[in-house]
This record gives sequence, structure tokens and C-alpha cells, in this order.
Amino acid sequence: MTEELTEEMRNLKPLHKRRLYKMSLTPFRVLVSYYFLTVGVVALLLSLPVARQQGADWSAMDAIFIAASSVSVTGLTTVDLSETFSVTGIFILIFALQVGGIGIMTINTFFWLVFGKKIGLKQRQLIQTDQNQLNLSGLVNLLRQILYLIILIEAIGALVLGTYYMNYFEDPKEAFLQGLFASVSATTNAGFDITGESLIPFAHDYFVQFVTMILIILGAIGFPVWTEVRKFLFYKGTKTRFRFSLFTKITTATYFILLVVGTVVIFSLEFNGFLSGKSWHESFFYSLFQSTTMRSAGLLTLDMNDLSTSTILFMSTLMFIGASPSSVGGGIRTTTFALNILFLFHYARGRRTIKVFKREIHHDDVIKSLVVLMLAVILYGSSVVILSATEDVSLISIIFEVASAFGTCGASMGITPDLTIFGKWMLIILMFIGRIGILSFLFIMSSNNKAPDFQYPKERVIIG
Amino acid sequence: MTEELTEEMRNLKPLHKRRLYKMSLTPFRVLVSYYFLTVGVVALLLSLPVARQQGADWSAMDAIFIAASSVSVTGLTTVDLSETFSVTGIFILIFALQVGGIGIMTINTFFWLVFGKKIGLKQRQLIQTDQNQLNLSGLVNLLRQILYLIILIEAIGALVLGTYYMNYFEDPKEAFLQGLFASVSATTNAGFDITGESLIPFAHDYFVQFVTMILIILGAIGFPVWTEVRKFLFYKGTKTRFRFSLFTKITTATYFILLVVGTVVIFSLEFNGFLSGKSWHESFFYSLFQSTTMRSAGLLTLDMNDLSTSTILFMSTLMFIGASPSSVGGGIRTTTFALNILFLFHYARGRRTIKVFKREIHHDDVIKSLVVLMLAVILYGSSVVILSATEDVSLISIIFEVASAFGTCGASMGITPDLTIFGKWMLIILMFIGRIGILSFLFIMSSNNKAPDFQYPKERVIIG
Ligand SMILES: [K+]
Ligand SMILES: [K+]
Repeated sequence: MTEELTEEMRNLKPLHKRRLYKMSLTPFRVLVSYYFLTVGVVALLLSLPVARQQGADWSAMDAIFIAASSVSVTGLTTVDLSETFSVTGIFILIFALQVGGIGIMTINTFFWLVFGKKIGLKQRQLIQTDQNQLNLSGLVNLLRQILYLIILIEAIGALVLGTYYMNYFEDPKEAFLQGLFASVSATTNAGFDITGESLIPFAHDYFVQFVTMILIILGAIGFPVWTEVRKFLFYKGTKTRFRFSLFTKITTATYFILLVVGTVVIFSLEFNGFLSGKSWHESFFYSLFQSTTMRSAGLLTLDMNDLSTSTILFMSTLMFIGASPSSVGGGIRTTTFALNILFLFHYARGRRTIKVFKREIHHDDVIKSLVVLMLAVILYGSSVVILSATEDVSLISIIFEVASAFGTCGASMGITPDLTIFGKWMLIILMFIGRIGILSFLFIMSSNNKAPDFQYPKERVIIG
Repeated sequence: MTEELTEEMRNLKPLHKRRLYKMSLTPFRVLVSYYFLTVGVVALLLSLPVARQQGADWSAMDAIFIAASSVSVTGLTTVDLSETFSVTGIFILIFALQVGGIGIMTINTFFWLVFGKKIGLKQRQLIQTDQNQLNLSGLVNLLRQILYLIILIEAIGALVLGTYYMNYFEDPKEAFLQGLFASVSATTNAGFDITGESLIPFAHDYFVQFVTMILIILGAIGFPVWTEVRKFLFYKGTKTRFRFSLFTKITTATYFILLVVGTVVIFSLEFNGFLSGKSWHESFFYSLFQSTTMRSAGLLTLDMNDLSTSTILFMSTLMFIGASPSSVGGGIRTTTFALNILFLFHYARGRRTIKVFKREIHHDDVIKSLVVLMLAVILYGSSVVILSATEDVSLISIIFEVASAFGTCGASMGITPDLTIFGKWMLIILMFIGRIGILSFLFIMSSNNKAPDFQYPKERVIIG
């Protein structure tokens, strides 16, 4: 890059500072306040005696952990939900998943839309909504419609699963409670279960798995994608052809590519292991379902301890990547991963701008994606090192558990209840960071100091 | 960043292509040819019957593995050297360490100096040598002087250790052979031993450890640092004050900061473990020596299996970072790590240019450092996943072994001889990549395709 280029970069500072203020600091505070408030309320509600079954084990740590896990829709738990909570308790959990999963997703999307408008640059218009619609009331209206749609999806899921569960449960009330909880848990990608053993009872029921996967994908694909699909469906007849945004294309493509790659890799790694002796359709559904669920849902049709170390490491990577931004998922997010990979390929081919789907990616976004990846790797690595010092469990189960918390996935090799108080708090922090998004953290750490005005000479160094 | 900025980036392509050709492709071919040639020769020489003790176990795989390990100065081994090689064999190994460690370091530095001159930009002048001196004969002369200096250091080390070892070995010949091998093994950061148990016999001999650490640091600090120190000493009297290059400052500072941090962390992690009940000076030397050796040397004063999982994970990180560029070490290199960290801090503080030691880092170098880190993380992660599928050893020993190979460190939890043929070949490849440097690989993968001339509109996406 030339001298003039860096000169340009230097001149950008005022814009940058404006962005820092407008985009991140205030929304971040709102999000964090909302998060801690709901965790507090849920912890208190779950601690009410009416929420629990007679004689169930319970501690303040359990209350805080399960509240944090449900508001972050992670699904890790220190107790067996089916043996701990009353029907009232289960409804409190359903409430927590809604305010956690859908609430945070909505707030995120809201700020994203507002930010897109306030900056006022046409090329930064992130979602293909009418400019007219983007006044505050139009925005609230848009989000409300989508919220209704999600609740409708959850209701349909509950109805379908509830009716179908009458094959499994004699009491229709029990069947519909199970169906409702399963539907909400899948749609919000929470991954909690009240069966006592996740979806293992349905390991051979492809219908339940199919419905669950649809609900999981609808939750994990991201709110912005929803708004565009809605627009696409409603505005199909108008003269100007609707175009999906670059964001929607990248996140959706990445989501489904990873889904397919995950299925193939899990199948290959377990072909001679867990899947040996199983029919092709069993093997296919085991691989597909686990690939789908490992991105942020955390529901399982098998026991993680039956899988090989390499499969568990691979699954940890899937959880680390996570779901789409502004969805109910966590991790570094699909777009971060996509930009990381695109950056590498373009760099290797000697290109300095990243082009994909006939669009050029903004350089700032590429840098951002690299920052997110680095911070996530540092966070992940140091968490594993620290927990392996404090916890008396196997290394692989820690590697898996940390990825599960950061990716707000909730799958576990079963160590969660055995962790120390310190270990549980570390997971609570990881779930929080994974859910809120790692980039937001960078911005609260950043001071608003003005950089020195004088310039230093440039000098090169040898790398790698 | 603005439109104009990316415009600038686009215009840079011709320069970039020139660089690709001049800097990386040709030197890379030379390096790789040299590497494979020396590995082949060493493997053949080691396979001569005269190189081995009567009746020692030996296979073609051992020959290739130990040749690759010695040319890459890694020090991982599939056999016990002290029980396998004759005195002739030990001298062949010493030869291999010289052509591997010092040879590759020299070639690297040579191309770096030539590159610095050919580009002809004053601001890219990497080393503070006279322009006059940078004709080919001056260059060869400079490198030759430094080579002599290194061999002198090795000789002094051999003499000091050999004389001192007369306390340990009755036969003076044995003492001096041990001294010579130890000196070369330390200076080239190879980490091989012919004691049969590394430096564990000297775990309480602080003199041996001190001398060894000095030799290790002299090898790992990097050839370019040497040329500058030499210049600093010889040209001290001239009118213009000598200034160390930014590269030398960054790599030396990073090297020593990591040395101190490593000592403190190892001490803290093992305070209640391996070090409990040991005196302060024992604890200090155990921590300091392992911190020094974990960067690329691989000599040990303790058994890795006595350490806790968290310490081993931390040490794996040190090995992954490795030593200085153009040194006898491997890994992602100190400068890569330094630029990664500086990038994060500057980004968090909202700055777009990285300033350190009163100089501004070139944007290209920052991007390069991020590419190296990402590739290394991908290489590291996928190697661990693959080996955990193919090898029947513990996960932690694989994590450690992969870091050790990539960082050309050579410390091991003892699994090397037990690996499958596939596993051994993977380590050979990792040692090769670690030694040659990961960035070089990117450039052979890169095609010389001209990027399309038309432009796409820019569009932003949500990250993280
Ligand atoms: K989840
Ligand atoms: K070594």
C-alpha cells in the first residue's frame, strides 16, 4: 500500500469515532442491561418454590446458571430439567427462552436497521427495506410483524409436535406440553429438553427430527434474512426486481455449506465408529441432525460420549463458528467465518479486494472479521487452559464444553453439573460473550483517546 | 475506508505481482530444493551401517524422520539417539544440524537482503547495512563473517561444556563429544540429545543450564539481529548514530517479553504441582529453562508427563509462537505474534495505523501477519483433529506434539515412536512448514491470474 493510502486512513478518524459512538456504545449498553435484567428476573422466578418439583435439588448457583443459560439460549444445565421443574417452572423457562432468544435477536436487528439509516450512506444500506418504512414507527411495525411470525411458527411447531407426541405420551396434556417445549426450544435454538435425555428417544423417528431441524434452521438463519424473505414474498409483483442483500446471500450460503460439510465430515469420521453396523438412513439422519444441531441448537439424538475424539473436536469447531448474526445463535457467526475464508483465498490469489456474489466486500468488514476471529481464538484458548487447571475432568470434555458455551450450543459431554463454582461462572461469561457477540466487547474496552497527530516514518518487518 | 482507498489498493496490483515473483517464488524454490536435497542426503548417510551401533533397531521410516527432524532442527525422534548412533552417526547428525539450522537461516537472510535491495525503496530497507556493502560480493562476505561467528560460538560452547562435562564423564573423549553435541544442539536449537534423557541429568546444574540457555537464545534471536549487532559494535565510532531497525526491536522485545511471561506462567501453573516442595532457585531454573527451551530448542530438564494439562497447553502456545524470523526456530514467529497483538490493541483503541518504537508498521505487514496466524491456526487445528482420528494416544500428547513439530521445538510427551506411519509423515510435513515459514506456502498456492478489470459495487455485511 502506498503513502497516500495510509494518509487516507488517517483522515478517516472522525468518521470512525462517530461510528463508535452511534453504532456500538449505546446499543451495547441497552443489550447488556436487557441481558442482565432478564437473567436476574428469570433466576428469581425459577427460585420460587412453585417452579420446582417436591424435593428437587436446588441452589442459588443453579438458579443463576440456568437463568444465564436460558436467556443466552445456550441450553447447558447443572440439573436435569425434567426432574427439577414443575409445569409452572417449565413455563417460566419458555418465557426465558423467548425474552432471551427472540428478544436479543430483535434488539440486535433494531439497532442494525437504525444504524443503517442514521449513517445515511446508500452503500451501507444493509437490508432491502423501503426508505419510507425505515422511520421509527415503520421499523417497530416491521419487527412486530416478524415477531408475530416467529410466535406463529412456534405455535405451529408446538401443534404439530404435540399432536404427533400423542404416539409417545398417553396423557394428551403431557404430549402437548412436551410439544410446546420442544418447539420453543428448537426455534429459539435453546436446546433444553424436558424428556430427560434430549432427543435420544426420537433417534429413529425421522419425522420429529425433520420438524425439529426446520425449526432450528428458521431460528438460526437470522432475523435480517427473515425481513428480506418477507419482502421478497410480498413485493414480488412490483416492477423493480427484488434483490437479496449481500449479507443474506453470504450468511445463508455459509450456513447451508457448513450444514452439508458438517454432515459429510461427521459421517466420514464415525463411519467405522458410532455409525458402523447402522443402516444408510440411520447414519444419514444421525450425521445430518448432529450437523444441524451443532451450530447453536444443542439438541442431540445420541450420547456425545459414544463419539470419537476427532468427531468431538470437529463438532467443537462447528459450535465455535456458530449461527448467523442477529439470530438466536452464538459463536463467531457465519459471516465472520465466511469473510475469514474469503480473505485467505483472495490473499493467496494476490487480490486485495474481496469480491463475492458480484459485490465487493468493504475493507472495514474484513478487518472486523479478523478481529473477531482473533479475539475468539484467544478467548477460547485461554478458557481451555484455565479450566483445565481448575476442573478435574477430561481435556476433551473441556474443549467441547467451552465451544458449546461460546457457540451458545448447549451440547455437553455431561460435565456441567460437576464443574467448580469458578468453572460455572466462566461458562456463564462465555455464554454471555457468545450471545452478545465478541465485537461488542472490543468497543467497550476501547477508549476514546485521540490518536497523536504527528506521524512516524513507516518501516517494514519480516513476517512468518 | 473510502472508495478512493480501495481504488488505490486496486492500482497496487502490478507492484504486488512483481513482489510475488521477486520475493517469494524463486527464493521459495531454492529453499525447498535445498531442504529436500539435504533431507535426502542425511537420510542416506544415517542409513550407512557405519553410522549406527551394532544391533540397533532401524527402519527407512526412522531414517527419513530423523533426517527431516534434524534438517528442520526440530529434535523429535523415533529412536533413542544415544542407543542407536555410533560416533560417526553423531557427527553426521551434527553436520545435518549445521546444514539445516544455519544453512536455511542463511538462505532466508540472503534473500531478505537481496529483496530489500532489489525493490529499491528506501523505506523498505530492512537492515541497517551500507548501500555499498549490498552488492552481491559484499553480501556474501557479510553472511560468511556471521557464519564464522556462529561456528566460533558453537566451538566456544563445545569447549566450555566439554571441559565442564569432565565432572560427569570419566572419559575425556566422551565428555568433549557430549560437549560438542550439546553445544551444536543448543545453538542450532535442534534439541537433540545423546545423553538419552535430554538435560534431565543436569536438572540441578545451573551452570550447564545457563550456558545452554545463552546458546539457545543466540540461535533463536535471528540472523538479521546478528548483522545489526555486529554493525553496532563495529561502527560505533562513526559520526551518524547507529539505529537498530524496527524489525530487530520488535523481534528482540517480543522474544524476551515472552521469555519472562513464560517463566512466570509456568511457575504459577506448577507452583502447587511439579514445583511444590522445591526450593525457590530450583523452581526458578525449572521455569526459566523450560520457558527458554519451549520456543524452539526443545531441550528439557524435566519429564513433560510430570506437568499439568494446563501447563502443557500453555507450553504448546509458546511453541506455536516460536522464535524470530530468519533464525533457527519455527512457529508463526515473534514478529507475526507481535503484529497480531499490536493490531488488536490498536483496533480496540480505534486506531487505523499501528505505531510502535516511534515507527509506523506497514499495512501490508499487518495483513501478512493475520494471514500467517489464520493459516497456522487452521493447520494446527486440522492436524490435531486428523491425528486424534488416526493415532491411539492421548489428546493432550497430540496437541503438544503438533505444536512441537510446527514450532520445530522437538519437546515431546514421548509418543513419537508410537505414531503410525501416517502420523509420522504428518509430523514431517508440519516440521517442514514450521521451518520454511507458513507464508511461503501461500505464495506457491497463489496463481498469477489477472484479477477481472470490472468493478462490483461495495456492500457491507454484519460481522460477529
Ligand atoms: K443452544
Ligand atoms: K528444536
